[in-house]
Amino acid sequence: MQLQTATWQEVESYLKRSSAIIIPIGSTEQHGPNGFIGTDALCPQVLAQGIGETTGALVAPTISVGMAQHHLGFAGSITLRPSTLMAVVQDQVNSLARHGFDRIYFLNGHGGNIATVTAAFSEIYAESSLGTAGHNRPALRCKLRNWWDAEGVAEVSKRRFGAAEGSHATCSEVSLTYFAYPDFVKKVAMTPEIAPNGPIYDADDYRRRFADGRIGSNPALASVEAGEELYNVAVRDLSRDYLAFAQED
Amino acid sequence: MQLQTATWQEVESYLKRSSAIIIPIGSTEQHGPNGFIGTDALCPQVLAQGIGETTGALVAPTISVGMAQHHLGFAGSITLRPSTLMAVVQDQVNSLARHGFDRIYFLNGHGGNIATVTAAFSEIYAESSLGTAGHNRPALRCKLRNWWDAEGVAEVSKRRFGAAEGSHATCSEVSLTYFAYPDFVKKVAMTPEIAPNGPIYDADDYRRRFADGRIGSNPALASVEAGEELYNVAVRDLSRDYLAFAQED
Amino acid sequence: MQLQTATWQEVESYLKRSSAIIIPIGSTEQHGPNGFIGTDALCPQVLAQGIGETTGALVAPTISVGMAQHHLGFAGSITLRPSTLMAVVQDQVNSLARHGFDRIYFLNGHGGNIATVTAAFSEIYAESSLGTAGHNRPALRCKLRNWWDAEGVAEVSKRRFGAAEGSHATCSEVSLTYFAYPDFVKKVAMTPEIAPNGPIYDADDYRRRFADGRIGSNPALASVEAGEELYNVAVRDLSRDYLAFAQED
Amino acid sequence: MQLQTATWQEVESYLKRSSAIIIPIGSTEQHGPNGFIGTDALCPQVLAQGIGETTGALVAPTISVGMAQHHLGFAGSITLRPSTLMAVVQDQVNSLARHGFDRIYFLNGHGGNIATVTAAFSEIYAESSLGTAGHNRPALRCKLRNWWDAEGVAEVSKRRFGAAEGSHATCSEVSLTYFAYPDFVKKVAMTPEIAPNGPIYDADDYRRRFADGRIGSNPALASVEAGEELYNVAVRDLSRDYLAFAQED
Amino acid sequence: MQLQTATWQEVESYLKRSSAIIIPIGSTEQHGPNGFIGTDALCPQVLAQGIGETTGALVAPTISVGMAQHHLGFAGSITLRPSTLMAVVQDQVNSLARHGFDRIYFLNGHGGNIATVTAAFSEIYAESSLGTAGHNRPALRCKLRNWWDAEGVAEVSKRRFGAAEGSHATCSEVSLTYFAYPDFVKKVAMTPEIAPNGPIYDADDYRRRFADGRIGSNPALASVEAGEELYNVAVRDLSRDYLAFAQED
Amino acid sequence: MQLQTATWQEVESYLKRSSAIIIPIGSTEQHGPNGFIGTDALCPQVLAQGIGETTGALVAPTISVGMAQHHLGFAGSITLRPSTLMAVVQDQVNSLARHGFDRIYFLNGHGGNIATVTAAFSEIYAESSLGTAGHNRPALRCKLRNWWDAEGVAEVSKRRFGAAEGSHATCSEVSLTYFAYPDFVKKVAMTPEIAPNGPIYDADDYRRRFADGRIGSNPALASVEAGEELYNVAVRDLSRDYLAFAQED
Ligand code: NI
Ligand code: NI
Ligand code: NI
Ligand code: NI
Ligand code: NI
Ligand code: NI
Repeated sequence: MQLQTATWQEVESYLKRSSAIIIPIGSTEQHGPNGFIGTDALCPQVLAQGIGETTGALVAPTISVGMAQHHLGFAGSITLRPSTLMAVVQDQVNSLARHGFDRIYFLNGHGGNIATVTAAFSEIYAESSLGTAGHNRPALRCKLRNWWDAEGVAEVSKRRFGAAEGSHATCSEVSLTYFAYPDFVKKVAMTPEIAPNGPIYDADDYRRRFADGRIGSNPALASVEAGEELYNVAVRDLSRDYLAFAQED
Repeated sequence: MQLQTATWQEVESYLKRSSAIIIPIGSTEQHGPNGFIGTDALCPQVLAQGIGETTGALVAPTISVGMAQHHLGFAGSITLRPSTLMAVVQDQVNSLARHGFDRIYFLNGHGGNIATVTAAFSEIYAESSLGTAGHNRPALRCKLRNWWDAEGVAEVSKRRFGAAEGSHATCSEVSLTYFAYPDFVKKVAMTPEIAPNGPIYDADDYRRRFADGRIGSNPALASVEAGEELYNVAVRDLSRDYLAFAQED
Repeated sequence: MQLQTATWQEVESYLKRSSAIIIPIGSTEQHGPNGFIGTDALCPQVLAQGIGETTGALVAPTISVGMAQHHLGFAGSITLRPSTLMAVVQDQVNSLARHGFDRIYFLNGHGGNIATVTAAFSEIYAESSLGTAGHNRPALRCKLRNWWDAEGVAEVSKRRFGAAEGSHATCSEVSLTYFAYPDFVKKVAMTPEIAPNGPIYDADDYRRRFADGRIGSNPALASVEAGEELYNVAVRDLSRDYLAFAQED
Repeated sequence: MQLQTATWQEVESYLKRSSAIIIPIGSTEQHGPNGFIGTDALCPQVLAQGIGETTGALVAPTISVGMAQHHLGFAGSITLRPSTLMAVVQDQVNSLARHGFDRIYFLNGHGGNIATVTAAFSEIYAESSLGTAGHNRPALRCKLRNWWDAEGVAEVSKRRFGAAEGSHATCSEVSLTYFAYPDFVKKVAMTPEIAPNGPIYDADDYRRRFADGRIGSNPALASVEAGEELYNVAVRDLSRDYLAFAQED
Repeated sequence: MQLQTATWQEVESYLKRSSAIIIPIGSTEQHGPNGFIGTDALCPQVLAQGIGETTGALVAPTISVGMAQHHLGFAGSITLRPSTLMAVVQDQVNSLARHGFDRIYFLNGHGGNIATVTAAFSEIYAESSLGTAGHNRPALRCKLRNWWDAEGVAEVSKRRFGAAEGSHATCSEVSLTYFAYPDFVKKVAMTPEIAPNGPIYDADDYRRRFADGRIGSNPALASVEAGEELYNVAVRDLSRDYLAFAQED
Repeated sequence: MQLQTATWQEVESYLKRSSAIIIPIGSTEQHGPNGFIGTDALCPQVLAQGIGETTGALVAPTISVGMAQHHLGFAGSITLRPSTLMAVVQDQVNSLARHGFDRIYFLNGHGGNIATVTAAFSEIYAESSLGTAGHNRPALRCKLRNWWDAEGVAEVSKRRFGAAEGSHATCSEVSLTYFAYPDFVKKVAMTPEIAPNGPIYDADDYRRRFADGRIGSNPALASVEAGEELYNVAVRDLSRDYLAFAQED
């Protein structure tokens, strides 16, 4: 069930059978010459919809802008500072807690969010641990799950793309968005075929190291077909993961 | 053009002909017995897409969660604290400014956002006025435009719904979402037919005054047809408004 | 009763008959060639004193510096950032709540404060709505009232000044301060007679558009007599408004 | 010259002869059975006016609410949290700096403000020291001066009140406000005559230790005459101190 | 060279040959029945001293309190909220940058710090990427290195402790502190021998899951000898890692 | 007892006999040509250890970086902004409060910390006074004690150093660190012998006034012997002071 097209009465009913919810979280940032700026938000969004259909989970609207400071050297990239994203996560979780939700499952599409969202969880828990949490808030559990860490995904990615998968603007994520938005498939020649690797600091340094935005990948290999296979595998495995979290002791 | 399905090179090209962008902003909050929790986000989102097609404007991803503290008495409502939403607006605007965007048009779907987003604009301008703005940032202009303030909208709303339009969970906004998401049209009897009016304070007080969440409206009158007419009128008039802002001296 | 010249025992007595209080809030900013920099603070201050005498209301000290970033291009203007002003409003309200005050009436003299103070109210209510409010705080209601929105004021202003009233450094507000501080009446020729209109962004843009600081007004028309009439009308109508708020269900 | 009744052109002229300004800062808090809640704000306000007349200094509006958390056990006391007051001081100083003011003289009426305002100065200087200060800001110097530390004041206080002076709701500060506001002189018997002494922690602990709010004082000895003498001595000596600061190398 | 026993002139000389520095960062939190509360701070502190001797690196004072909210159920544990720790990291890095340091190497002793410190780095980089960084700051590179991830450490730990190593109050970290502080070696019987495993949420949940504080370990196996071997391996491999970072292109 | 080498069970036992704790707090900043950058942290650290041995007090790890913005003109100096240091103090105190500690004794080694730490105490108390304190927190009392204010210290300092003691990089503090770290005694000729005096603003102004970092002192007179005498006197008198605070009614 999508929260955005539900009524509050339908959510009230849902809460009688489950106190878990999925929040897709991504980023708005360059993804190289043929990847969408919305790649990292669209991937978890489309997967969360699939998981929702498979498991009956309630799916909140996607947090589309994440922590992407290192991409600001490329037009169209938008970032929240880590401190801002932490406040967003905190407020959303605390709002849901007021209704009785106590298992908040963040389905993540962006590596750059991991540290910040994890820190946000600690900031939330610290309210309980220091005794300043809202008095109508249950004991909360938050989980961040990167969609590409779903069990079967690595096998598909390795089989199809091998060393060309890379770590930013990967073949897999581009494929998944092509499957979801086939009208926007873009054919672009990559030079060099496989992008360089390296560490990440600020935006200027990033642009200096990674001239077209990719890291270690050749997303010219991305395809709708690969995206479909990845979608099926990921929805299947993430659904299992979500249910285990929702029922965790 | 939707930012989420564009590449950074396409945005770079866009910036050669325009430095304006549209950011739809809404809320995730109860909208009475037959309105979607996502009403306030979905309305500007669908309209922004229309304006983008009409004018060629670039459309950023929707800020789906806004300032909705007063709705927290109803399941599924999510709020950002005003201070958090201000930080979100600030970071997004400052990110866009880094690329050269200097006319940021927020298309708003939620009355509760107006004060906070307006305050956020002042926080952004204060950086310039106090001399602490980012050194690579142009002189910025931000505008908040409520979709229902589009010129022709009041006429349609008055003609079709009269006194039943109300001010929360209005006939017009519910109609617009029904037009956009006809599969989710809900038929619910309203008691009383027209909801009461009153001031807004915190969530408990709100629930005490407005038992099913509506204020002053009878959204049972909402329809796909009304939504279509509102859509057409609003896209036409907001397109004109957007272009005037983009070209303002 | 003025809070500043009362003792705590007198306030304790007051609280037995009323839990409402008035806080005048203004700004410290240029008001054109013949208006005081303190105009926006002095207007609500002097009116609040009148309302206090009329209704017996307790009047807190004036918040003299508000949100005036756009005026920083003119010497003597002082601003709080919106985030700072929000914290000020929050702390003052929460302090008063500790004593049992639960109806806080902000009498406002500055358009630039409206968004920020309204956002501050939501920040305060959010503490209740999210369950993090102070445990010794009553359910709070805050109201912002612009003195120029008092019922009878528009009629006086229209009759006396017509199109020359304007929207910054208005004839009415300058008149009111002249009535209150007749020793400081200043005679200055205005060029052009009526100042231009336009949108407001940051301080540099403001100075570029509005060369001597006024917007749309010709405050050379201001007079002690007009100020006296405005004072009488405003005190009468705002007193009624204050009492209605204090007794609101 | 009072900033509130000046125009921006008058401030512009002032800046040609001086870049110094006085900001009175006080508190809104209980001052025992016969002292005004506004004592700490009214004292520096009235003295600053006198210094302004003596020296020609420009006087900004008073910061009337300060750091008074320990007084919240007594009705009518209002506090800013230290972090809020620091932001207020920062914003006001940075606003003035934009116009070219670089010697900001805070005339203080409240012991509880000293640490916070001093910390705020360091926060302001840290912007310069870390290189993040506004680019249109001069090198700033801020000074906090407690009015009761004016050279001649201790002699008057000792001679007139001796051990009954105390440290909160002192004979001197009550006298000074009686001199300034003789209509509000209050006669109240004190029990015990001289209030107890002790350390200060939070509001509950304060109320437990200091039953009627005073610390170590017998303000029944306060008088208009003593206030007048204190006023004259303090204006004379603080004027000298202000000028030395304004001209400091 | 230890920063704490150096003079500023010695640091000035150091900066002529290197712009890198080591900051040990740990935590103050329970480490089970026989581990020190300071384990996570003392380990990187003692190793950094060794690396400093080996490489000539400058070593800053240890950040001894980190992010340990989940340990607050056990007496003596102290936490910084993530937002606070981020500000600490930011300020220290920005201070060092003012002097010309541009390679800041955080040697970490606590898993709970990783997300927060990584987020802090992004907050710092965002200042550059958004153009608000201090104007006298070089392009910065920060690195977080967990001492237990030094190349040779896993082999030693596996060989000596196998499955009893665990993930909190590990045999290795306890051994390392025993080597550094042999006077405080504590002999305590563990029940059960190997502690349970599980996820981490807030402090109450942690105490419920992990009764004596350990996770998955049997630190009764810890010894001075193991600590010495770990020390030697870690200093050797971390020295190499530090130098590579200091010289990275 | 040092917290860092204790176990949580030992702290639990300690809490049965005392709810007081010592936190040494210092700074990392230049101390002239022959003083250590760590002087202000090492002095309270070594004294706290002595007080701990004398009184049985529990000693927390030292806060080694304090508020030192004015020293940033000299290589190696590190500052926390006042707002950051306040958050650090707040979090550490609130963590300890969760365990039942209610007398927190900060032994301070740096004048520049006094205002900020005192403001932090008020921020902590304000949580109680405004009713937002953690619900599992006792009524807290915090005390800041400068080691050089210990009763007997002034006599030693005056007798040994007279007018050469100064106020930054003092003979006494340098002596105390020489006693604690005799291997690092440095012999440097001072020019001029006694450094100048003056006010403190930002880092650039500081460096302009105080060319080698000292204020008013001639630390060439510092010696291990003087340090030993100071150590003995200070430990004796501060132990008494600590115990009085721990037992205060
Ligand atoms: Ni991606
Ligand atoms: Ni709506
Ligand atoms: Ni005005
Ligand atoms: Ni006072
Ligand atoms: Ni550990
Ligand atoms: Ni020192």
